[in-house]
Amino acid sequence: METLRVELGSRSYPILIGEGLLGERALFEQHVRARDTLVVSDTVVEPLYLEALQASLEPRRVVATILPEGESHKTLANVARILDVLVANRFGRDCAVVALGGGVVGDMAGFAAATYQRGVDFVQLPTTLLAQVDSSVGGKTGVNHPGGKNLIGAFHQPVAVVADTRTLATLPARELRAGLAEVIKYGLICDAEFFQWLEAHIEELLAGDAAALARVIRRSCEIKAEIVGRDERERGDRALLNLGHTFGHALESATGYKEWLHGEAVGAGLVMAAGMSRESGYLTAEDQGRVARLVARAGLPTRVANVKPDAALEHMRIDKKVQAGRIRLVLLRGIGSAFVTADYDEPSLHRTLAAHLR
Amino acid sequence: METLRVELGSRSYPILIGEGLLGERALFEQHVRARDTLVVSDTVVEPLYLEALQASLEPRRVVATILPEGESHKTLANVARILDVLVANRFGRDCAVVALGGGVVGDMAGFAAATYQRGVDFVQLPTTLLAQVDSSVGGKTGVNHPGGKNLIGAFHQPVAVVADTRTLATLPARELRAGLAEVIKYGLICDAEFFQWLEAHIEELLAGDAAALARVIRRSCEIKAEIVGRDERERGDRALLNLGHTFGHALESATGYKEWLHGEAVGAGLVMAAGMSRESGYLTAEDQGRVARLVARAGLPTRVANVKPDAALEHMRIDKKVQAGRIRLVLLRGIGSAFVTADYDEPSLHRTLAAHLR
Repeated sequence: METLRVELGSRSYPILIGEGLLGERALFEQHVRARDTLVVSDTVVEPLYLEALQASLEPRRVVATILPEGESHKTLANVARILDVLVANRFGRDCAVVALGGGVVGDMAGFAAATYQRGVDFVQLPTTLLAQVDSSVGGKTGVNHPGGKNLIGAFHQPVAVVADTRTLATLPARELRAGLAEVIKYGLICDAEFFQWLEAHIEELLAGDAAALARVIRRSCEIKAEIVGRDERERGDRALLNLGHTFGHALESATGYKEWLHGEAVGAGLVMAAGMSRESGYLTAEDQGRVARLVARAGLPTRVANVKPDAALEHMRIDKKVQAGRIRLVLLRGIGSAFVTADYDEPSLHRTLAAHLR
Repeated sequence: METLRVELGSRSYPILIGEGLLGERALFEQHVRARDTLVVSDTVVEPLYLEALQASLEPRRVVATILPEGESHKTLANVARILDVLVANRFGRDCAVVALGGGVVGDMAGFAAATYQRGVDFVQLPTTLLAQVDSSVGGKTGVNHPGGKNLIGAFHQPVAVVADTRTLATLPARELRAGLAEVIKYGLICDAEFFQWLEAHIEELLAGDAAALARVIRRSCEIKAEIVGRDERERGDRALLNLGHTFGHALESATGYKEWLHGEAVGAGLVMAAGMSRESGYLTAEDQGRVARLVARAGLPTRVANVKPDAALEHMRIDKKVQAGRIRLVLLRGIGSAFVTADYDEPSLHRTLAAHLR
């Protein structure tokens, strides 16, 4: 088992990464102090792992809420269901909410934990690659609104993240590919060497090689923990983690959260961010090509055929990155060198959207 | 104008108290940096003050959401309505939500501000005595759940509290009395001299004497600001502010938030807390009598006829003050000396409930 730490003063917490951690009762003994726990999972993950987790949480009281699977169900109404279960079971402020699943489950369970009695303990047990490398770390919780992705939510740090890499063995190939989009993102933001390593090892990752996956999970969490520790509330550098996401969120919103997995939209979003960086004169054609090729090799979309450029732009305008009416973009000066800017021209943005959408 | 300050590091903010502040445009110039503002108010307050406020907020963009009045409407569904308006108007993370009204409006507007885009600026313009002395200060936001009072919410500090004491001139007498319950509470918690002053001046306050009201608003806000500055998240002393509230919340929940104003329930709750303190041997009969008499003179209920003791106990068990299955109570060692304890016997609690309910 490897242990990383997100350093946030009194809200610091460990990220534990290893094989079979869900079955290690001693681990939960150490990291979950609550005696009443609500496990939130979805219909796909529950039959695979809930029973084992319940055994590991003994002798605590364990109640479970099972939600429908998928991004289109990440709604305020489903968070209200979780809250209803907490109230119905009379859980006190000293309870814990435990997310067992991917990013959707984690975001909703986390938002419920953030708002039940104005905040209770929250434990992340991510079971997808995307959740293990990205969404389970950093305390962003929330739900989608018909008008936009993650528009309603809260910052609420978990007390621990337990990433059991063995759960990736049951992960559908499409979900594995979606997770790789976020992994590629970390290389692009700040680690050219890691990006190069991904170029050399993408096939092993797609084949589910455990050692290669463990490596990318560790490195991704390291980068994310470091950035979040520096800027918990996204007043500065944390915005870099949104590389590809302003474009990606627009694709998700425009298709009603039903067409694309979040990671797939981010994959296309990374290619669009690279395209916009090139259009704006920040990135070389060669580096733009490397981004598009790696995303394509990871089995992710690089263009999207069912979203009109104007519709995407509409959705970008309600994204959280808008300031003083202007969309702030995360762009690339090179592989491993992302930056936030509102300094670009509109025609470049239109050309970029037109080149990748239809 | 008087200015107090809630000291919370980077989240510190001013409380401005004075006559006619809603009309002072320069004040809003100074304290509201957003150019897009959503004013949340209710059907009673809107016709009285919205127009004046809109003029003071110019040249900002001002959108208004008017909610139904009363505690029974403090629901997640109404917060969702506020969020819908923010999204529909494409407000960005740099907008501000402005609460114009009493505690119900402030709690809901604040919760919307806490969760829209994971947190936007929030300005409190309390127009009731209760909101001016208590609920607008300290960052507690949230809504009721059918299972219990304020069970869903967040801590989200305002960027400014502007208490225009002139609004109290239009306040119904019943609302004024309800606010006095929280004022009496502050004296009981930590200021025997203030309590004594209230005993001597309660008639002036009930008659709406502006100078007397200004004095109690200032002193109440001073006490609250001091306690909140010491313990923002209620890990310690802040719990003292719940004196009378565990009992009071149970009365509100048991009557569906329809029978009693929050302050009225708190009035009865203060008397019950004094009764329980006496039953437990902490408080003298004489001091218990002083509490009951002042609450009665303020025109507030000291007994409740339509809630059964068992029903109240049920509702107390889901209150946020429960820890490890045990209800923690705020009790009195004397006038001006409250403390938190789980050290009491159940029969005393039953006797206290039986003596004040039926």
